[in-house]
Formats: sequence, structure tokens, C-alpha cells
Amino acid sequence: MTTPSAKALVPFVSVDQMMQLIHHIGLAPMMQGICDRIEADFRRWPLFDKTPRLASHSDVGVIELMPTSDGEVYGFKYVNGHPGNTRDGLQTVTAFGLLSDVANGYPVLFSEMTILTALRTAATSALAARVLAPKGSTVMAMIGNGAQSEFQSIAMQAIVGITEVRLYDVDPAATAKCAQNLQNSGLKVVSCKTAEEAILGAQIITTCTADKQYATILTDNMVGAGVHLNAIGGDCPGKTELAPAILHRADIFVEYPEQTRVEGEIQQLDADHPVTEFWEVLSGTAQGRTDAKQITLFDSVGFAIEDFSALCYVRDAIKGTEFFTPLDMLADPDDPRDLFGMVNRAQ
Amino acid sequence: MTTPSAKALVPFVSVDQMMQLIHHIGLAPMMQGICDRIEADFRRWPLFDKTPRLASHSDVGVIELMPTSDGEVYGFKYVNGHPGNTRDGLQTVTAFGLLSDVANGYPVLFSEMTILTALRTAATSALAARVLAPKGSTVMAMIGNGAQSEFQSIAMQAIVGITEVRLYDVDPAATAKCAQNLQNSGLKVVSCKTAEEAILGAQIITTCTADKQYATILTDNMVGAGVHLNAIGGDCPGKTELAPAILHRADIFVEYPEQTRVEGEIQQLDADHPVTEFWEVLSGTAQGRTDAKQITLFDSVGFAIEDFSALCYVRDAIKGTEFFTPLDMLADPDDPRDLFGMVNRAQ
Repeated sequence: MTTPSAKALVPFVSVDQMMQLIHHIGLAPMMQGICDRIEADFRRWPLFDKTPRLASHSDVGVIELMPTSDGEVYGFKYVNGHPGNTRDGLQTVTAFGLLSDVANGYPVLFSEMTILTALRTAATSALAARVLAPKGSTVMAMIGNGAQSEFQSIAMQAIVGITEVRLYDVDPAATAKCAQNLQNSGLKVVSCKTAEEAILGAQIITTCTADKQYATILTDNMVGAGVHLNAIGGDCPGKTELAPAILHRADIFVEYPEQTRVEGEIQQLDADHPVTEFWEVLSGTAQGRTDAKQITLFDSVGFAIEDFSALCYVRDAIKGTEFFTPLDMLADPDDPRDLFGMVNRAQ
Repeated sequence: MTTPSAKALVPFVSVDQMMQLIHHIGLAPMMQGICDRIEADFRRWPLFDKTPRLASHSDVGVIELMPTSDGEVYGFKYVNGHPGNTRDGLQTVTAFGLLSDVANGYPVLFSEMTILTALRTAATSALAARVLAPKGSTVMAMIGNGAQSEFQSIAMQAIVGITEVRLYDVDPAATAKCAQNLQNSGLKVVSCKTAEEAILGAQIITTCTADKQYATILTDNMVGAGVHLNAIGGDCPGKTELAPAILHRADIFVEYPEQTRVEGEIQQLDADHPVTEFWEVLSGTAQGRTDAKQITLFDSVGFAIEDFSALCYVRDAIKGTEFFTPLDMLADPDDPRDLFGMVNRAQ
């Protein structure tokens, strides 16, 4: 066996190592750290290479590549979305990602991102809610109690300061699972039998369901004045959660309009319907919430910069720890032009 | 430490394992096997999802993602191209790739592709030369004696039947390295001091240089009738190797016109200059070489389907061998909706 040099070895964070890293840092502090990193990157949004994700659709799901670069570091995520997977005991969403050095193209981090995506999605939602939700929001309705629901709840607690979460899912077993997972979180957890019951008294309504269809998780009459809607589940063509009438009453904030108009709730609206880019609110060039009675909607589909931020956080967090493995991913001949000689000598 | 289930584990082929696999199978038989797979996939070309690669350009190089799918298997490659890397002892091109199951989005193979790309590029060149070069071609000029040159030579020997390779590089050390690596190949190896000397008597002229510029490796007066040009180095915007006059005298064959018109030699021509898609020659719907005096040009930039074919070959070749490592890449909770519970229980 040939021993690869340091240049050939890419730090790899496995699923187990990501879980150990989370326990090492703590889930809430880690989501706070990722949130800070996303906020900093959103404030320098114009610097990034941006492109809608490259999606490969099939009848049963989608596989996507989400690249971006800030000119110094390049990152991408591979992610699938297959709503039928849970029937077969598989995850709806799995993901992994990579960072590399723009100066030479060499990867510098390879990481699982099934878990990390859950953290960055919750951190992004909480960042938007901290900025857009009514001041002093304390109650969140969590509609859809699947894999993302606990992360959303903990992030909203840590970053926005909510104290109560009201759970609803079409499947009571999902609600029971979420409630049990949150029992030691410090949140007041209320399991509800209907979506109407869940939104009672909530200033923040998060929808996160997985069916690939035009669903109506919220109807117009369910949404009153002065709430913040955090719509996560409408994230690919043909998959939405909100009645169009709600969209017409809301001020809509998005990550990257070119992508959201195809994938988000606003695919139900005209292509020129006004939306605000959320990064502009953070950087002060656009207004966020201006009125306590306003309905704000964060129509979130997930954007490559959020993954980039999360990967950068992990790259820094694993330094000096044992939560990664060097992976022999890159051929590294002594003479870079002598790839053939390296292969030959390996015999 | 939590033990991941089989669903979470993706077979990973490291650089060392790829080299061992090559020695296990033999370099020439492995390139022949990849060539057969590429030919079979090119014959069913219309079935594939095709898109130009997603490139992130910087002043010093490019990082690209190259996805494709045949409806059952999805594959992509990450590859960089940084001509200045060799100055720092790094590879110009490094790559890795992945296959996944379209039905559920789960990866089924993760592999180094720096070495594998060299094999598939040479196998593709040889496939094109077998079909397009003059019958009975025995001599190849190899202009550019870098990392790809020996693989090209061995593939042309195994697949086309050449018996002599004539080497030229602006750097004599590169030629010496290539000649030494080929000394036991069975090929007659002639090291040349000029490109003109190298092409003497050659029926096949392969150009594979790495400078990112409009270079003129071959001028019009150097190329006579009845040769096959295999142009590999012109593979991104602003990077070409052939004088435009040669292109006007040649019948041009390409992989995927949408990509080649941007990246290949034909970026120097009008956007409507006639070209033939090589897969059509293989499937019998277009003509290849029709005349012994004709100049045929394979303007190769590398296409995602070739990587897909090579990865499928590796996926099959490693079955039952020790040339891979199971990698804990995918989170796999017992209940797919209970990602949070899995993380919690890992403590």
C-alpha cells in the first residue's frame, strides 16, 4: 500500500463524527454559530457566484447539485428529495457536501450533510424569524412533525426566544415522536389534533411537510394579521403548502428569486409578483417588517450559500478535534505530470 | 460510537484502491472495458439527461460539476482544471465522482476520479480513433507529454492497434518521463525535438497540452491529408490548440455540441459551423470517415456520460473485491422521520 501525502488527504466528517461534533459543541450553540455564519455570508451576498441549483427530476423525486463560491472558497452540496422514501425506511432527504480552494481546485472538506442540512435549514429559518417575526414572539406553530421539526423548534428557541411550540401533523405518530424528542428542551410543547388548533396564539407559523404536490396546509381564513410564516416544505416545482390567497396578503421574503420563483410558494404567483431578497434586509438596503399587523412570509427553498456557510462552520469547528478522518481522495504523484508513473509504482 | 446500518454505507474507492484495481485487472484491459461501456452508453445517448457542465471560473482555473442520468442511475463528477498547479507540485486536474440510485437518491458509489478520468479520457479518444482514423493506423504523434500522454498511448495501442508513438513536448523532461514510462509497453517510442518531427508518418495526431490560452500547437501547414486529429487540450473557454484553418479543412466530430461550442476547438468557429455528434456515428445515423484523404477531427472536451460509464464500470468491477471501503456518508435513523432522535441517542 502506497502512503498518500498530506496533499492527497481530504478531511471527511462522517455521520457519526457529525453527531459527536454536535454533542461536543451542543446543538443550540452549533445552530447559533451556523446562523451567525449565514448572516455574515448573506451580508456579503453580492460577492458570491450564484446559480439556481442543477436539478435532475424523476417521477419519484429529485437529485440536486448546489454550488457557490465567494471567490476564495468553492462549495457544493449533493442533495436528494424523495417523499416516498420513508415508506421504505429511507430518509426523504440525504446530502453530503464539499469545500475546495478556488486557488488550486483541491478539496479541503468533505462532509455528510443530511444532519448538517437539518441544522442549517433551522438556523436559516430562525435568522429570518428573528428579523421578520413580530417583536417578542414566543409561540410557534410547527405544522409537519417530520425530520426537520425538532431542529426548527430548538433553533427558534435559541435564536428567536420562543418558549412554546404547538405541534400538528396528519400522522399523530409523527407529533408524538416530535413531542417526546422535545420533552427536555425547556420548551412548552403542545400536541394538537388540527392545524387550526396548532396556530392558536402563534406569532410564528412554520410549515414543513414533504408531499410532492400542490397541497394546502394553510388556508386563507387560518392566517390572521401580525404573524410570520416560515414556509419550508414548498421547495420544488409542483410542491407548495400555502393557499395562493395568503401569498397575496403577505409581504414575501426570499433567498434567491431566480430559484424561488420556480421552486417556492411563489411559483403559484405571477413571475413579476414583488418579493424582497432577505439578504437586503440584513444589509439594510430593504425593509423587513414595518407594521405589527403585517403578515411576513419567508418563502424558503434552501440556497447554496447556506450550505456553504454551514460547511465553513464545520471546517473551522473540526480543527484540532478528532471529529474527522483523512480520506485518500486525491491522486498525488511526486511529479504532478507523472500520474502514470505513480500508478505503475503502486504495483 | 454508533454503528451505521448497511443503508448508510457507501462504497468508497480511494486513490490507492483505484491503483490496486488497475493492477488487478490490468491497465489495457481496464481501458478496453471502460471503452466498451462508453460505446454502449453512447449508443443509447438519447436516453440520458444531458446538460453542459456547471463551471465556476476564476482567474487561475475552473471547478466543474458534470452530472448526467440514464433514468435509473444518476452520476456526477467534480473536476478542477488549474494549469498553474504543477508549479506548486499539485495536479492540474483532480477529480472525484459519485453514482446514485434515481429511485431513492441514495449514493451507491463514491470514487476518486483523478486516475479514473485519465483512463476514461484515453478510452474515449481510442474509441473515436478506432472509428474515425484511417484503416490500419499504426503511428500516433503525441503532442504534450503530461499526465494524460501515457494513458493515451496505451489506449491507442490496446483499442486501435498502434505500434509506434512519437512524443513531443515543449519541455524535454516531460518527453523523457513519458518515454521512460512507455519503455516496457511494447510500443516503439520515438522522442522528438519538434512537433513537425513528431507528426512524421503519423496517421493519428493527439494534442494534449494544458496552457489556458489560445495556443497553436498545430499550424495549418503541419497537417496533411488522411490523418485523424484527436484534440484533447482545448477544453475550456479561451483554451484551444489548433489553428482555425485546420478546423476549416477537417470534418469535425464532437461529444455534445452545446458544450463543445463553448469549450472546444470549435469555439474559434461560427456557432453554426457543421459538426457531427460522435454518438450518431456509433449508432449508424451519421457517417464517420468516408475518404482516406479526409482529415477527421475529434474535438473532445470530455462529457459527463463518459464519467458515468467509467463509474458504472468501477461499480461493477469492485464487487466481491477488497478495493473499496464502506463510508459512513448517509444518516440512517431507524425511523426515517426521527433524525433528531438519532442525533440525540448518539450522545
